[in-house]
Amino acid sequence: MQFDYSNKVKAMRPSIIRELLKQMADPGLISFAGGNPSADAFPAKEIREISDALLAGPPADVLQYSITEGYPPLIAQAKKYLNRQWQTVHEGDEVIITSGSSQVMDFMAKLLCNEGDVVATEDPAFLGALNAFRSQGATLVGVEMEPDGVSLAALEAVLSANPKPRFYYTIPNFQNPTGYTTSLAKRKAVYALCQKHGVPILEDNPYGELRFTGEDIPPIKAFDTDNLVVYAASMSKIFAPGMRVAFCAGSADLMGKMTVAKQGNDVHTNLWGQRVIDRFFEQYDIDAHIARLRGVYREKARRMMDAMDRELAGRATYVPVEGGMFLWLTLPAGCNVPGFVAKCLERRVALVPGSAFLVDEAAPCQSVRVNFSTPTGEQIDEGVAIMRQVLDSM
Amino acid sequence: MQFDYSNKVKAMRPSIIRELLKQMADPGLISFAGGNPSADAFPAKEIREISDALLAGPPADVLQYSITEGYPPLIAQAKKYLNRQWQTVHEGDEVIITSGSSQVMDFMAKLLCNEGDVVATEDPAFLGALNAFRSQGATLVGVEMEPDGVSLAALEAVLSANPKPRFYYTIPNFQNPTGYTTSLAKRKAVYALCQKHGVPILEDNPYGELRFTGEDIPPIKAFDTDNLVVYAASMSKIFAPGMRVAFCAGSADLMGKMTVAKQGNDVHTNLWGQRVIDRFFEQYDIDAHIARLRGVYREKARRMMDAMDRELAGRATYVPVEGGMFLWLTLPAGCNVPGFVAKCLERRVALVPGSAFLVDEAAPCQSVRVNFSTPTGEQIDEGVAIMRQVLDSM
Repeated sequence: MQFDYSNKVKAMRPSIIRELLKQMADPGLISFAGGNPSADAFPAKEIREISDALLAGPPADVLQYSITEGYPPLIAQAKKYLNRQWQTVHEGDEVIITSGSSQVMDFMAKLLCNEGDVVATEDPAFLGALNAFRSQGATLVGVEMEPDGVSLAALEAVLSANPKPRFYYTIPNFQNPTGYTTSLAKRKAVYALCQKHGVPILEDNPYGELRFTGEDIPPIKAFDTDNLVVYAASMSKIFAPGMRVAFCAGSADLMGKMTVAKQGNDVHTNLWGQRVIDRFFEQYDIDAHIARLRGVYREKARRMMDAMDRELAGRATYVPVEGGMFLWLTLPAGCNVPGFVAKCLERRVALVPGSAFLVDEAAPCQSVRVNFSTPTGEQIDEGVAIMRQVLDSM
Repeated sequence: MQFDYSNKVKAMRPSIIRELLKQMADPGLISFAGGNPSADAFPAKEIREISDALLAGPPADVLQYSITEGYPPLIAQAKKYLNRQWQTVHEGDEVIITSGSSQVMDFMAKLLCNEGDVVATEDPAFLGALNAFRSQGATLVGVEMEPDGVSLAALEAVLSANPKPRFYYTIPNFQNPTGYTTSLAKRKAVYALCQKHGVPILEDNPYGELRFTGEDIPPIKAFDTDNLVVYAASMSKIFAPGMRVAFCAGSADLMGKMTVAKQGNDVHTNLWGQRVIDRFFEQYDIDAHIARLRGVYREKARRMMDAMDRELAGRATYVPVEGGMFLWLTLPAGCNVPGFVAKCLERRVALVPGSAFLVDEAAPCQSVRVNFSTPTGEQIDEGVAIMRQVLDSM
């Protein structure tokens, strides 16, 4: 049968990265293309011990249906966790547990957008979020990224435009794909602008805990006296993405609506992942675990930046990063980026062209996204050397 | 901040059952209101053994990101499982793994419905599905249920109407809420009618394996020469709902679109649940496990029907069931059903009024849904005796 699809399907597109990754099972490939956390970073021993203890208890505690909002003790742990450094859960806010933070992106657009409504976003931005917004029929309007965060003039123009955006999407820490971190001053300015124009903010913070140098900066949500920020805290980089668990904090009213949207989608987040994470918070020192993670990422990032300094100085540029999983490498003007990416892939080095992360994928982009969390140290050295050879051959 | 919600939010409603259940943690309550599988039915020992063996292996195998379609070995197992009794996965079909079968309902409406488009459904029907369709902006049109399946005349009228439904929703085995099973003849007729009118079928089969008496009847999907049936096989009743795993089989083209919708929602179903179920299929005899489940449900259903025959004969009627988790108890004309439900709750017996499952919740309904999988045998006897006392007092 030939199906007659809804208008939303016409706007949907598969993530070229996730499609690419399926063809990348080849162990000979050096992949700087993915966004997987380092497998060394999983607290695997602790997860195994907790899981076995849980499954030795009453089966229904892990296996039965649970409530849509999330396992209540984990919600309590999440509130404590989210407020331990700065207050991010404010009076009038509530926390729910979602199946990864992508679900927050999808539900946010479902709850706030009718077909054709505008969503404003950092540009470039996380492709999964852009695709989730597109799949809900939203029209994306990009706001140009700078190394210290979005261009405030561009943001003000977008927020003042008619029609007004339904919300503004941002990753202030170690942004995907650029690795850029929004400065404290710009965070305050972004909040003030959105408050002035009455535009909700969707603040996505998957990488914030992965700061390996420099000072932590409070999230925009910390300034949220008006409950206009929805804050998504993925647990994928702290625990394990296979679990599909994230925390979402925002206005109690909006969180109630998101709960109903979730009820009609997956009913609740898998209980095993929720209970394992809850017990980890109970039994272990989360900050000691995060300190260990930071060590893993510090070493990988250092290795990548050293290799780039060694191999690519004078050939390409990047803004050094203080955390996260990505670097944004900019090739000289005139260098054919798709050609460079294709030639690297021929030499078994995978990269994602920067244009994949743009609101307008057809716009010119001289950068590529380079992931340093997945490859080994040797792969980093070898892969960057190949990138140099390819650049020199062009 | 006051959020300005999309039109879809106005159509959303929380499941009154799931809201009810949150207030039902009281262990003194006899709940015939839920839809939880019997906790005795979980293969808890096997799950624990498998889980520990998996978590003792390479951490990334269970904890890392996976692909959206589902863990490939589980997809292969699912195809074998779905085709072991009848062929349900046909040439031109594909199978994906979803986070419970509710996700299939939500994505099906997202992929096929623009705002206001019609979805045809058995009436009454599973409330979670109706709410998922509503949340995508669909307009529901009900088709009256009879004890051997939907009224064919009513279905033909709905399928011939203008606008034509975008799809037709059915639970042919031990339907929720009625417990009714669609006869073989009606299944063939439903397929022929939908084929004739070019209307896709969403066949939801969460309870099919829970047949404790009588002969298995092939699913509508078994006749699907045209790939017009999307078939959802929940694993919640066979393994454990807390895992949030279901199989979905349908036209490869539609499954591709559903994969993109899922990519933008939860990226993939939690890997632990997928890998545990995969290994269960590999190491254990699924049919022996299902035979044990059927024994558990047979005993509970027998106890409930015996109690009703003993206590309610001459006072209320039901159609005996051959499987599943629910009975549809019809009270005498003139009996005030909401009053009966309220009085039972005062006496600590919880039931769901039948009107909750109607497309038009304001329409009159003389029935209540009675779940027999959750309560113990003693609770069944005691609860039904209380129902008799309440009926006699009215």
